[in-house]
Amino acid sequence: MNSTNKLKIFNDPIYGFISIPNSLVFDLIQHPYFQRLRRISQMGLSYLVYPGAHHTRFHHALGCMHIMQKAVETLKYKGVEISDEEETALYIAILLHDIGHGPFSHAMEHSIVEDIHHEEISLRFMDALNLQFEGKLSLAIQIFKGEYHRKFMLQLISSQLDMDRMDYLKRDSFYSGVAEGNINSDRLIQMMNVADDNLVIEDKAIYSVEKFLMARRLMYWQAYLHKTSVVAELILTKILKRAKELTQKGVVLPCSEPLQFFLQHKIAQESFDAATLEKFALLDDYDVMGAIKSWQFAEDFVLSSLCKMIINRDLLKIEMTEGKPQSEQLQQLKAQLLQKYPITDKEADYFVFKGKLKNIAYSKESVPIRILKKDRTVEVLEETSEQSQVKAMSKAVTKYFLCYPKVLLG
Amino acid sequence: MNSTNKLKIFNDPIYGFISIPNSLVFDLIQHPYFQRLRRISQMGLSYLVYPGAHHTRFHHALGCMHIMQKAVETLKYKGVEISDEEETALYIAILLHDIGHGPFSHAMEHSIVEDIHHEEISLRFMDALNLQFEGKLSLAIQIFKGEYHRKFMLQLISSQLDMDRMDYLKRDSFYSGVAEGNINSDRLIQMMNVADDNLVIEDKAIYSVEKFLMARRLMYWQAYLHKTSVVAELILTKILKRAKELTQKGVVLPCSEPLQFFLQHKIAQESFDAATLEKFALLDDYDVMGAIKSWQFAEDFVLSSLCKMIINRDLLKIEMTEGKPQSEQLQQLKAQLLQKYPITDKEADYFVFKGKLKNIAYSKESVPIRILKKDRTVEVLEETSEQSQVKAMSKAVTKYFLCYPKVLLG
Amino acid sequence: MNSTNKLKIFNDPIYGFISIPNSLVFDLIQHPYFQRLRRISQMGLSYLVYPGAHHTRFHHALGCMHIMQKAVETLKYKGVEISDEEETALYIAILLHDIGHGPFSHAMEHSIVEDIHHEEISLRFMDALNLQFEGKLSLAIQIFKGEYHRKFMLQLISSQLDMDRMDYLKRDSFYSGVAEGNINSDRLIQMMNVADDNLVIEDKAIYSVEKFLMARRLMYWQAYLHKTSVVAELILTKILKRAKELTQKGVVLPCSEPLQFFLQHKIAQESFDAATLEKFALLDDYDVMGAIKSWQFAEDFVLSSLCKMIINRDLLKIEMTEGKPQSEQLQQLKAQLLQKYPITDKEADYFVFKGKLKNIAYSKESVPIRILKKDRTVEVLEETSEQSQVKAMSKAVTKYFLCYPKVLLG
Amino acid sequence: MNSTNKLKIFNDPIYGFISIPNSLVFDLIQHPYFQRLRRISQMGLSYLVYPGAHHTRFHHALGCMHIMQKAVETLKYKGVEISDEEETALYIAILLHDIGHGPFSHAMEHSIVEDIHHEEISLRFMDALNLQFEGKLSLAIQIFKGEYHRKFMLQLISSQLDMDRMDYLKRDSFYSGVAEGNINSDRLIQMMNVADDNLVIEDKAIYSVEKFLMARRLMYWQAYLHKTSVVAELILTKILKRAKELTQKGVVLPCSEPLQFFLQHKIAQESFDAATLEKFALLDDYDVMGAIKSWQFAEDFVLSSLCKMIINRDLLKIEMTEGKPQSEQLQQLKAQLLQKYPITDKEADYFVFKGKLKNIAYSKESVPIRILKKDRTVEVLEETSEQSQVKAMSKAVTKYFLCYPKVLLG
Repeated sequence: MNSTNKLKIFNDPIYGFISIPNSLVFDLIQHPYFQRLRRISQMGLSYLVYPGAHHTRFHHALGCMHIMQKAVETLKYKGVEISDEEETALYIAILLHDIGHGPFSHAMEHSIVEDIHHEEISLRFMDALNLQFEGKLSLAIQIFKGEYHRKFMLQLISSQLDMDRMDYLKRDSFYSGVAEGNINSDRLIQMMNVADDNLVIEDKAIYSVEKFLMARRLMYWQAYLHKTSVVAELILTKILKRAKELTQKGVVLPCSEPLQFFLQHKIAQESFDAATLEKFALLDDYDVMGAIKSWQFAEDFVLSSLCKMIINRDLLKIEMTEGKPQSEQLQQLKAQLLQKYPITDKEADYFVFKGKLKNIAYSKESVPIRILKKDRTVEVLEETSEQSQVKAMSKAVTKYFLCYPKVLLG
Repeated sequence: MNSTNKLKIFNDPIYGFISIPNSLVFDLIQHPYFQRLRRISQMGLSYLVYPGAHHTRFHHALGCMHIMQKAVETLKYKGVEISDEEETALYIAILLHDIGHGPFSHAMEHSIVEDIHHEEISLRFMDALNLQFEGKLSLAIQIFKGEYHRKFMLQLISSQLDMDRMDYLKRDSFYSGVAEGNINSDRLIQMMNVADDNLVIEDKAIYSVEKFLMARRLMYWQAYLHKTSVVAELILTKILKRAKELTQKGVVLPCSEPLQFFLQHKIAQESFDAATLEKFALLDDYDVMGAIKSWQFAEDFVLSSLCKMIINRDLLKIEMTEGKPQSEQLQQLKAQLLQKYPITDKEADYFVFKGKLKNIAYSKESVPIRILKKDRTVEVLEETSEQSQVKAMSKAVTKYFLCYPKVLLG
Repeated sequence: MNSTNKLKIFNDPIYGFISIPNSLVFDLIQHPYFQRLRRISQMGLSYLVYPGAHHTRFHHALGCMHIMQKAVETLKYKGVEISDEEETALYIAILLHDIGHGPFSHAMEHSIVEDIHHEEISLRFMDALNLQFEGKLSLAIQIFKGEYHRKFMLQLISSQLDMDRMDYLKRDSFYSGVAEGNINSDRLIQMMNVADDNLVIEDKAIYSVEKFLMARRLMYWQAYLHKTSVVAELILTKILKRAKELTQKGVVLPCSEPLQFFLQHKIAQESFDAATLEKFALLDDYDVMGAIKSWQFAEDFVLSSLCKMIINRDLLKIEMTEGKPQSEQLQQLKAQLLQKYPITDKEADYFVFKGKLKNIAYSKESVPIRILKKDRTVEVLEETSEQSQVKAMSKAVTKYFLCYPKVLLG
Repeated sequence: MNSTNKLKIFNDPIYGFISIPNSLVFDLIQHPYFQRLRRISQMGLSYLVYPGAHHTRFHHALGCMHIMQKAVETLKYKGVEISDEEETALYIAILLHDIGHGPFSHAMEHSIVEDIHHEEISLRFMDALNLQFEGKLSLAIQIFKGEYHRKFMLQLISSQLDMDRMDYLKRDSFYSGVAEGNINSDRLIQMMNVADDNLVIEDKAIYSVEKFLMARRLMYWQAYLHKTSVVAELILTKILKRAKELTQKGVVLPCSEPLQFFLQHKIAQESFDAATLEKFALLDDYDVMGAIKSWQFAEDFVLSSLCKMIINRDLLKIEMTEGKPQSEQLQQLKAQLLQKYPITDKEADYFVFKGKLKNIAYSKESVPIRILKKDRTVEVLEETSEQSQVKAMSKAVTKYFLCYPKVLLG
């Protein structure tokens, strides 16, 4: 087909060019399910902190596929046998691994699609596509579900050092300008190998692995868990909760038809059927932000106030606290609020609340990062000579915060 | 104020950090009129070609202000006197120079806000802000309108080598990954000076100036006038035209209230009053794309077909032609189309049409780029020793194209 | 072999990693003839203008080989058949194409090895290596000499858009910090193809080709022909001439034994035998700069003065003139000099002299750059639609200058 | 002066442009003492591992001065008072802080200038320059010696987060291509302040500080202490030792006059007089490498063998060992060597030896890095919330190795 031939290459400021390996992958990229990812921001509302962070899940998925191509090339060069069918399956699996994300996924999962996780929805999409593409995605799905016998393949897609993490760290760092999050994916991939069917990294790259973990840790605290991003996302969660609450009380809020559907129905894993999937496939950032834009003029004080905060970037105050915030402090803030605003005690929870942030740079509970030593033996990262550094990164760090309207600042 | 202090710096992957010079500028950035630019993409639909091109007019405006700071610093270092008041005015003028852009500006200006240009709307916004800020924008407005006596100041904001062009070339190149569009703004600014009240560039930067013009030329042909961007924008224009046509016939199309307003009313320069400005200030990409998402399910065949093209990135075929496309060719294509689709002859114009693209890298009609020679005399660029190159770039290049549905491809 | 395994990858700040394709190439890189290139600066004395420009011919040769690997990969992907033997020959030919360069090659070729050009010496080295490697370089030599029937292979090594130019522009730009010289080699290579046995570029990369030519033109005027680099090189040339003159008069100047050899003998193409090659293979920047360091304390006033200029970066004044400098002006400057310095009229020519610089960005006399159009026909660059730009770049530009001691500045 | 005006700006691929703040600094840069740094490589023989690592101490010193300008700008912006005189003194002190380095400093300090450290020699140079510049360097010298009352000024020049470390990490990473060593100096400087006369970093940059420490740690193990760099440097040390040994026995080795001087004399701190300084000021990489090139043809087997290793990059084998290498192993290797080579038992130590490498990323013994908290109190880095990570980095890591000729490899 003529038009097919023309778009075999994507420009990418990070890798230069991303080329599409074959026509099946091309057709998947062209599919409306996948094109929808062009309209879903990778970093949600983080652009309120980092104005460049408007890149999409579409671009990230392509980036993952690109570095998967590099990884496959490296592994084959080192003698790991990967058949053409497996190769294509790896590209498909990584390309579609995040296709189940909705708009502002984290906020949605805590408000209107509470009972089903995005990985599960990704799988639903893959199954639907597999039907349409006559079974050509079966191996990819098998790998994705962890049911394929060659387990390093899953590790390439989902582990503590997978293509997903590499691309998102690199990409989020690039677009946001948080330079410290950049990682040397070239070197990490160059140093990959397979031993005993596990993905391993040659030991001369051990400092690059450490640096990768540090970069991830830094991106968490400086970007993903940046307090302004966090409060923006929490406000968004509360907006969606409030809208659902009002809708279910019978209030009609202007919004797109697919969003209306999710406000009206309670979707759980069992009830997420083919029709739901079709609705879900129509949802993207435009539905959510479009609604919020309308709702800033809603009659409901809670809803309109919260929406204006997002639109005008005039957020709640978020304050990091030494330990868990005290209940008395919350009560006091709420009391003040009730004097200022015409709201009920329960509604005050939309404006005054506490929470915590938690991150582990390297988890000893998950599949470990494995290091291939010069004598060809394998050690898990936390047992290598650099263990003290890794040990320090294996501790969960928890931080507490308190949110309240700026009018209460005194 | 506490919260003010905190956001004095923006991360920018291009310049590292952008700092806000003073609290007036800070307050302007915080204003909803300006925050709206966060929701307007700088490159419109170009992301359909370059998936990274999702940066916004907000970010571009900040970037312009940043390099204006560098330019002011350089000029002062070289002894050009610039008062504090003038300095602030320059920052405000460049910050707000594009505030009058609507979503997908080019398409809108050819469909629903036909009789008023974005510069004029920028001025309306500035006037409105000047009222709110008690006259503090007066000098900025004077400079912007070309009414201030020191004309180099306008040239910094709007000329063939201004801060606007420098930032957008650098930024569009960065985010899209079209590496050749990158320019050395550092060097260009470093080499600026003022002579006889004109902005001039020292002659040792003459090759950088040429390279700047080449980069601009390349960005036009490779990005702004990329045939896929062009056809996408034309489809968008036709969508908005069709929607207005239908609305005015009484059809009710679901869309946001501000967009509804512009579909219903014919806005000309005279009728663009304060109320219109308030509506306009609510419009952004979410209104337009949100509408297009809904309209893909509209009853009208023309409207829904065009909308689906954008949403699924399944555009009309665009074919560059040697000379102007022949009328017969168009007629023939239309005839074929009428056989396939249930549309009228007039409606066929929505799907089959021709057009042309035109660009001049350097215009001899506009204010020239002036070169400061070692003997302190000034020459216009086209008269320097490099004139043959510049002459070649001063010729307008015109290219012709033809658009039609892919189903007609044979 | 153990040691072979270890160094299969070079770090390169430009391309990330450079990998060595096979053990023959590895052994060539390890050879003392090639290791010598580690001690020969790519940009000669340009570091006196651009302090970062200390990269070597060794690094450039590796870089060329790397992009040759990319080009071969692209061409094979597009269906151009290239056998394993041809592939290796291409790598060897590009790796060794500059091996005949001496230290500060240009200055040497105008002083002490006047009658033989570096390409000829490269060939001598290749022949010598071919003997040592039992004929394994024969095909590479055939290609290099233009005697192989597939002419696009020579064009990859030596033409107006070859791997050599791409790497040196990119590398010289990178290390010197002349950002405008950077080119998009990724894109240019991605767009290469072969048609009628000629190397061609797809027409959608035509602006990248233009930009490449512009970058080269800019690098000439801003770096290679920068007036300070030029005067430094001319002083170096005169130092070596003077040293040869004195040596042949019987003066013994302290210097390394290989340099001594070239000062004592007049080497022409015929007399450049195997023994001469061995001496030449010992020469590098250390011999020349080491000698200049000693000679700043030489008795001869001319020699010591010129050497001090280089060592302390206190060069002759170089003045660009409108047309050719007038003889009277030179005579006058010389007359002044003779009053100040204890030198003869003839020796004054070492300090006061004129010259010219010449550059053509794109030569119509050489093998043209060929453009592959969408209809699969081929056009030479100067006949494409962008011809006015290319025409402007095809004109030779000549600039004149005059050099004299700063003490004469008045 | 005319020529002075012209070179007020240096191109730098890292920072864009480096400008010279005033004419005193300009004159210092022009001084032969400082120009000599153009001929001293920053990373010694590391180019044998990283072919791009040919940047010089000259460039590094300029880079340090550049970021010192940024730091001063930031601190003044935050209200720290710094007088013009202090500002200039800071630029001079950082510019000259490394002027006492000889060629391949580390190797020299372990062979021919054993009893005086490079900081001491820097001071000698500064004192000599202060004489020539009529006392204008007095304040800079005071700061450099730690005798000025404002101690944060010394911390900017020499501490665990000074301009020196920032520039060398950035520069060494850039030129070598070890991407992981890059640090965000912009952000670190942006976050600097002064509290209680100590240099402090605002706590929101704590992850950048950590990342800086990690980058430094990585650069040590991956570049400065890379085993190939280490063995090359040890061979160089042994070459110089052997040459001194032979010279003092009366053997005449061809080399430059200044190097001859240091081979003949034993220089200690007391005997390092003005005449010695003048000799030292003539020494650079060209003397050392020039000598090694000659000495590869020396009669002495030990000397010529070691020299050939460097010239042809055919080094001793270096093997990292689990613990300290056993004496028996060394004895055995020596015994084998004595059978192959015509050398004495003592001479065998030149070829077979052991050693260790040691590094601490962050030393608790030195002046700590201080963190400024939001409540304006100051904490030392190791006591902040991120302490576990820092603690891990405060442990000294020691690695052991063994070197021997490859012919013994079996």
